[in-house]
Amino acid sequence: MSEEMKDLGFARLDLSREDRTGMPETVYCPGKTAEQLEHILLAFAEAGSAAFGTRCSQRQADFVLSKGLPVQYDATSRTLLLPGRTPAALPGLVAVCTGGTADIPVAEEAARTAEFLGARVERFYDVGVAGLHRLLRSMEAIRRAKVVIAVAGMEGALGSVIAGLVKAPVIAVPTSVGYGASLEGLAPLLSMLNSCAEGLSVVNIDNGFGAAVQACRILNMIRGETS
Amino acid sequence: MSEEMKDLGFARLDLSREDRTGMPETVYCPGKTAEQLEHILLAFAEAGSAAFGTRCSQRQADFVLSKGLPVQYDATSRTLLLPGRTPAALPGLVAVCTGGTADIPVAEEAARTAEFLGARVERFYDVGVAGLHRLLRSMEAIRRAKVVIAVAGMEGALGSVIAGLVKAPVIAVPTSVGYGASLEGLAPLLSMLNSCAEGLSVVNIDNGFGAAVQACRILNMIRGETS
Amino acid sequence: MSEEMKDLGFARLDLSREDRTGMPETVYCPGKTAEQLEHILLAFAEAGSAAFGTRCSQRQADFVLSKGLPVQYDATSRTLLLPGRTPAALPGLVAVCTGGTADIPVAEEAARTAEFLGARVERFYDVGVAGLHRLLRSMEAIRRAKVVIAVAGMEGALGSVIAGLVKAPVIAVPTSVGYGASLEGLAPLLSMLNSCAEGLSVVNIDNGFGAAVQACRILNMIRGETS
Amino acid sequence: MSEEMKDLGFARLDLSREDRTGMPETVYCPGKTAEQLEHILLAFAEAGSAAFGTRCSQRQADFVLSKGLPVQYDATSRTLLLPGRTPAALPGLVAVCTGGTADIPVAEEAARTAEFLGARVERFYDVGVAGLHRLLRSMEAIRRAKVVIAVAGMEGALGSVIAGLVKAPVIAVPTSVGYGASLEGLAPLLSMLNSCAEGLSVVNIDNGFGAAVQACRILNMIRGETS
Amino acid sequence: MSEEMKDLGFARLDLSREDRTGMPETVYCPGKTAEQLEHILLAFAEAGSAAFGTRCSQRQADFVLSKGLPVQYDATSRTLLLPGRTPAALPGLVAVCTGGTADIPVAEEAARTAEFLGARVERFYDVGVAGLHRLLRSMEAIRRAKVVIAVAGMEGALGSVIAGLVKAPVIAVPTSVGYGASLEGLAPLLSMLNSCAEGLSVVNIDNGFGAAVQACRILNMIRGETS
Amino acid sequence: MSEEMKDLGFARLDLSREDRTGMPETVYCPGKTAEQLEHILLAFAEAGSAAFGTRCSQRQADFVLSKGLPVQYDATSRTLLLPGRTPAALPGLVAVCTGGTADIPVAEEAARTAEFLGARVERFYDVGVAGLHRLLRSMEAIRRAKVVIAVAGMEGALGSVIAGLVKAPVIAVPTSVGYGASLEGLAPLLSMLNSCAEGLSVVNIDNGFGAAVQACRILNMIRGETS
Amino acid sequence: MSEEMKDLGFARLDLSREDRTGMPETVYCPGKTAEQLEHILLAFAEAGSAAFGTRCSQRQADFVLSKGLPVQYDATSRTLLLPGRTPAALPGLVAVCTGGTADIPVAEEAARTAEFLGARVERFYDVGVAGLHRLLRSMEAIRRAKVVIAVAGMEGALGSVIAGLVKAPVIAVPTSVGYGASLEGLAPLLSMLNSCAEGLSVVNIDNGFGAAVQACRILNMIRGETS
Amino acid sequence: MSEEMKDLGFARLDLSREDRTGMPETVYCPGKTAEQLEHILLAFAEAGSAAFGTRCSQRQADFVLSKGLPVQYDATSRTLLLPGRTPAALPGLVAVCTGGTADIPVAEEAARTAEFLGARVERFYDVGVAGLHRLLRSMEAIRRAKVVIAVAGMEGALGSVIAGLVKAPVIAVPTSVGYGASLEGLAPLLSMLNSCAEGLSVVNIDNGFGAAVQACRILNMIRGETS
Repeated sequence: MSEEMKDLGFARLDLSREDRTGMPETVYCPGKTAEQLEHILLAFAEAGSAAFGTRCSQRQADFVLSKGLPVQYDATSRTLLLPGRTPAALPGLVAVCTGGTADIPVAEEAARTAEFLGARVERFYDVGVAGLHRLLRSMEAIRRAKVVIAVAGMEGALGSVIAGLVKAPVIAVPTSVGYGASLEGLAPLLSMLNSCAEGLSVVNIDNGFGAAVQACRILNMIRGETS
Repeated sequence: MSEEMKDLGFARLDLSREDRTGMPETVYCPGKTAEQLEHILLAFAEAGSAAFGTRCSQRQADFVLSKGLPVQYDATSRTLLLPGRTPAALPGLVAVCTGGTADIPVAEEAARTAEFLGARVERFYDVGVAGLHRLLRSMEAIRRAKVVIAVAGMEGALGSVIAGLVKAPVIAVPTSVGYGASLEGLAPLLSMLNSCAEGLSVVNIDNGFGAAVQACRILNMIRGETS
Repeated sequence: MSEEMKDLGFARLDLSREDRTGMPETVYCPGKTAEQLEHILLAFAEAGSAAFGTRCSQRQADFVLSKGLPVQYDATSRTLLLPGRTPAALPGLVAVCTGGTADIPVAEEAARTAEFLGARVERFYDVGVAGLHRLLRSMEAIRRAKVVIAVAGMEGALGSVIAGLVKAPVIAVPTSVGYGASLEGLAPLLSMLNSCAEGLSVVNIDNGFGAAVQACRILNMIRGETS
Repeated sequence: MSEEMKDLGFARLDLSREDRTGMPETVYCPGKTAEQLEHILLAFAEAGSAAFGTRCSQRQADFVLSKGLPVQYDATSRTLLLPGRTPAALPGLVAVCTGGTADIPVAEEAARTAEFLGARVERFYDVGVAGLHRLLRSMEAIRRAKVVIAVAGMEGALGSVIAGLVKAPVIAVPTSVGYGASLEGLAPLLSMLNSCAEGLSVVNIDNGFGAAVQACRILNMIRGETS
Repeated sequence: MSEEMKDLGFARLDLSREDRTGMPETVYCPGKTAEQLEHILLAFAEAGSAAFGTRCSQRQADFVLSKGLPVQYDATSRTLLLPGRTPAALPGLVAVCTGGTADIPVAEEAARTAEFLGARVERFYDVGVAGLHRLLRSMEAIRRAKVVIAVAGMEGALGSVIAGLVKAPVIAVPTSVGYGASLEGLAPLLSMLNSCAEGLSVVNIDNGFGAAVQACRILNMIRGETS
Repeated sequence: MSEEMKDLGFARLDLSREDRTGMPETVYCPGKTAEQLEHILLAFAEAGSAAFGTRCSQRQADFVLSKGLPVQYDATSRTLLLPGRTPAALPGLVAVCTGGTADIPVAEEAARTAEFLGARVERFYDVGVAGLHRLLRSMEAIRRAKVVIAVAGMEGALGSVIAGLVKAPVIAVPTSVGYGASLEGLAPLLSMLNSCAEGLSVVNIDNGFGAAVQACRILNMIRGETS
Repeated sequence: MSEEMKDLGFARLDLSREDRTGMPETVYCPGKTAEQLEHILLAFAEAGSAAFGTRCSQRQADFVLSKGLPVQYDATSRTLLLPGRTPAALPGLVAVCTGGTADIPVAEEAARTAEFLGARVERFYDVGVAGLHRLLRSMEAIRRAKVVIAVAGMEGALGSVIAGLVKAPVIAVPTSVGYGASLEGLAPLLSMLNSCAEGLSVVNIDNGFGAAVQACRILNMIRGETS
Repeated sequence: MSEEMKDLGFARLDLSREDRTGMPETVYCPGKTAEQLEHILLAFAEAGSAAFGTRCSQRQADFVLSKGLPVQYDATSRTLLLPGRTPAALPGLVAVCTGGTADIPVAEEAARTAEFLGARVERFYDVGVAGLHRLLRSMEAIRRAKVVIAVAGMEGALGSVIAGLVKAPVIAVPTSVGYGASLEGLAPLLSMLNSCAEGLSVVNIDNGFGAAVQACRILNMIRGETS
């Protein structure tokens, strides 16, 4: 494997990641100064690549915008997009579902990441299990997806119920929505890990990004097989 | 309130509890020697009362049976019944549901306790959310209950789904069924406490007994109102 | 069951919930933008329904007030009331008790929710177990309730003591009042789940709302039986 | 969806699961009596289906063997196979890797489950990150897999390192191998959930079965696309 | 301070502890082989001192008895007494209270330790807060104590209630009695640490011994003042 | 016992607490509005009693000062003193020790509370076990105390070391000083509960107030005996 | 050992620490008022010693700078240096490595502390295991170090991988970088404690300072041997 | 680096580890069948190497002894030694200290591992901080060590106190000795990680082996420098 790396001193950009893992490098913004973020985006821009930042604060976004970088910031999902050469389209559909309205920021992080990586995404928001008919009405559409991302806080049961109703793999994303015994999202995380349904795997609390990358790796395998 | 109490040295039997709380005293068997259990049952027998022991080990049951006490032991629920004067029948139905087969011992502890306390019980076992149609088929019957007891381990989502489908209060009982991140039942406990559904309250892990007493207190309030 | 639902894009209002569960839909405000909250309230207003929001921030309340919506905001309980067609009165009394003064906001969330749902409520505040005579003096009045809601932080013993003194079901609400080893309310939560008293079930930390809904479901069962 | 179900009283066999989820029902043995297990297997045998049990104890296996059922028991993985009509072969390869020798039982549960479900499996055992060359030597072969299952206890870093070196989705399985601060597998579970690598999703501690089902759902999506 | 020490190789007996801390050294038996325990007791016997062992297993006790050592073993409290020169009597009374019958072994460890150290002890067992009248009846007697030891599992509220009713310092001992969310005694431990009552301090779960030593240090201070 | 209580609506002042428990009521300020605090202090002032508030914020203090109440506020310990009729002096000395400088606010809460309750206090600050000679130099003075309060964060070993060197009871106060694995004070709390030294009991994290009350109850017992 | 100590009232400066432990005293700034910090630095300045403060806030630094103290503040590592007589140079090299960019502040605390204590430091930043080639490229240089400090958040695998590739002792520093199931750094802490690699020991979360002191003690032992 | 590896199917022996890390491979016995252990030892024997197994059960040891392998088993430390070509002697002394008698098995694992790796070891057992004079008497000898291993359960303060008194690096090993709030060794683990003393790093609970390897890596660095 040939390994290309750009060393910025504080960061080593992994320019051969796409060859190695099938996915372009993305930028996790927390813990980086606004100046570091700017330098990283400039490096991508120079390489002609599109870039995508997650968990980007309004302050970080404002800074890079003030520097004239042609980025687009989405405040709900806290994602930052630098347009450019993007990955080829992936086959199949990703369904992104949420239990409630408060889970939408995490779901949007997932949906936008998947779109950046070349996937087609359909959103099913506020279909939590306390009002089962809302979910059941959407099931026919959800069954068309190749991968389902189930985003839920509180008791996190959405993934279990969906996984029992579809053939596709379900990626469950617990969210920190809730209070008290939700323990900042530990309750739905544990709930999802203990699902009585099969066909569910789990990512970190609020990690919409990770769910999307996993979904796209799966689509990528399908592409590999069919192309 | 007049307080009657029988002091056995190691235990003070609370003979006025029924007057005070509407429920006869029951016996929590763990931590008692077989001899202590025998003495307690004898005191009830002398008073002509029925008695009911929970979490009774086979060894404890064998001992009191060997002493000629006319008790009935149920190994699945680990309950011990000393027949005698029992409480009057309670109005209304209690539905006891489980997510899976492995939750049945806890559910039986709940069902038999409720029956001892005068309730009519219907059982709905193995109706967990991973195979939703199993639950949906039973919903018409479950909706007839005045109180629903939902017993589930793993992700503990059964209570949330039921509570969204009925008008009755739901008492959720997490079970220690599961492994790994179930943390001996903490995962379904947290899940139930964080339910996105309304109308759910929770008792301790594996506490079928407590759920039954709470259900019967509710029925008792109905009786109070109607008598 | 006929399922009516109003889809606002970010939320699907469950307009048949009252038919299905006996309780009107209420609004959990956190994680919603002020604009989303406004749209939801407008949808209720258009339907002629009263609406009730919980955990509403001052900022959210100010926004909807600034839009001319005829809501009433209570800062202590952080609840928002949109007057309108309300549920019929429920039979029986709910007693809401607190261990200390600092538990009052949670208790008020419970009391106001129960009142919104049609219940008659009596408040017994600052009757914690460290000064037992304060509680004992109130017991005669508390015994008149059909359901008792016991709100307590710190060691959370209030529910156990009351449950040993009444016939009614007790709904225990742990609060995050305290510090250090209270672990943001986990200590009273665990305490309540392990109560040596019978007749106690528990809701999430600070979940006065959930306790009230459960209490009203119980009263609703009484109504069902008597009407 | 047409729902077929065989109600054994203590269990409701979900005979339409394969139609609904693409996977035949399997049997989770803990919490079932040996007699219940026998009855379940008989029901499958009568239906002509193959059956597969997980976490089957030696005692349970001995009992059903003593009843003349033609099952095969593998003591390492604690799986039980009843031969019969099996699912069609799945396209692509599953690589099952372990950090150490002690992780093999969980890995074998994964490998045998995947094989039962129709997948082709290759095993890479004892390739943990403390001796990196062992892993690097196997990478060329591992890169041929469509899904990688990474089974590891202790610090659970195997999944992160592999996910950084392949394009396929990685399903990480934490194991309870270890002691002290491994907290019965919580340490590798948390480690995997916090992976700095992308393309990793996680199942419950020791849940080789769940990882295999998820892997096979992924392969099934590939089949769906290509067939 | 002059420091005397007897080095047995595996243990260094602290023979000047009584001078330094006012209490004779006692023996914590777990983790010691039966032979090591015998050697330690022999060393005390040679010095003419009484000795007291805690958490002594039946097997350890049987071994030292089989060697002819004149020890007395109490199986309930798992304490071992080697008679000999004992400390002088302490002034004042220690009240040892328990919530339930199952807490008695821990309470007996406390009571027997305090008696060994020279204190006068009165026992009040099974006076838990779920049947408040049982406690209230005993309060007049409990108020005569100079120190109260409150032993309770489950929700651990006994100490709070007593501390609100007496002037004496209360030493609270959580016990591992309970199940599920009692978390092996963590629930009552946290409960006691968060007591809303003043005048309570806490020792480790099941540490009847530690409570007794603390009680006796307090009595010792009284003696110091009055002699 | 005659129970006097002043009901302020939001609080029930326990005016007979001093008779019942030997200690005047004090005011825990968090969770009270500045107005509530003012009303409580006025009630004490009207009764001619001194009053003492703990965990009083600067804002609360400024408010009551602005209302002309003659209170004294100490910002380090966050205590508020309303001078007035105070308890009689207690016999004996309380030694208040800290591991480090950052533990001083908690220690001052303890020291000032004890002084308010009538005790004589000597302070030994920054004598932590990492520089043992600092502690050993102070031991002669510390040994003169009737009760030792050991305040320490981080590993919380101060109490164990002191308890091994004195005859007096030691009240250990864990503090939330530290970071990371100190878990907001849980590490020193657990450490103190597991002390290998005898004669140590523990209060909640940062609970200098509780340690002081316990110390004063002990001194009160000495007074009771000697008067 | 002769013990010199300067008592500032709130702090006892341990001026003989260097003789006793081989390291000069440093100042942990949190929990100290800016004034206390100034007094401590003045005491060092008067003694002609260099001083080094860790976890110093910008506000504390600004205060002491405003008082004219000739200190240098580094905002990334939050360290404060008062130049003066410094320790003699230590033999050998310390390699400080990080998994990502966000770990740099902790790494800089380690690097600057080690430099203050006389060590030669080389930095290897952003060499985390998700892009293994970044680390492998640096290994030849890292192998020249006498001690390696591995700073990593998230899954914390960096230390394990390095420890398997070098002969030097590795000091692992978990960081609180991450979110959700990272539990403020507990995940990498547990991961490092459970490392399957040998030759790793661990310090507290974010404790770059502690790692550096340990590294320097090791170098000091080498010096001791060689001088 | 040239990598030699012997693949036994279930294990890949890392025969080049000594070249790479300076330490020979050792065998962690849990999770290996007795037969697997035998095969591993035979592979070492064939290579003429000494071998060393840790956490070896009596049953495993008996099996390999019954096969005629010339191993020596130590039941206290549960270590297994196969004599053979051993590493060269390391310079300097390792001091192994324990808080109590019950910590000795872990300490012996450390001591015997260090001896196997070529170190000279001196043992200081039962020198815990509750009887400080026992430790102070040994300090002169302990100060002669190049590395100190401090093994302690309960509050785990031994390491902090020693680290404040010596110049050498201290490796702290928490043990699972204790009960209740010791949480199987988590309490001393946290305590050690939060040490207020400098110069302490920590390994996993009961990991005497890991402490010894780290100590020997340190001695190895000294050797490297001096040879």
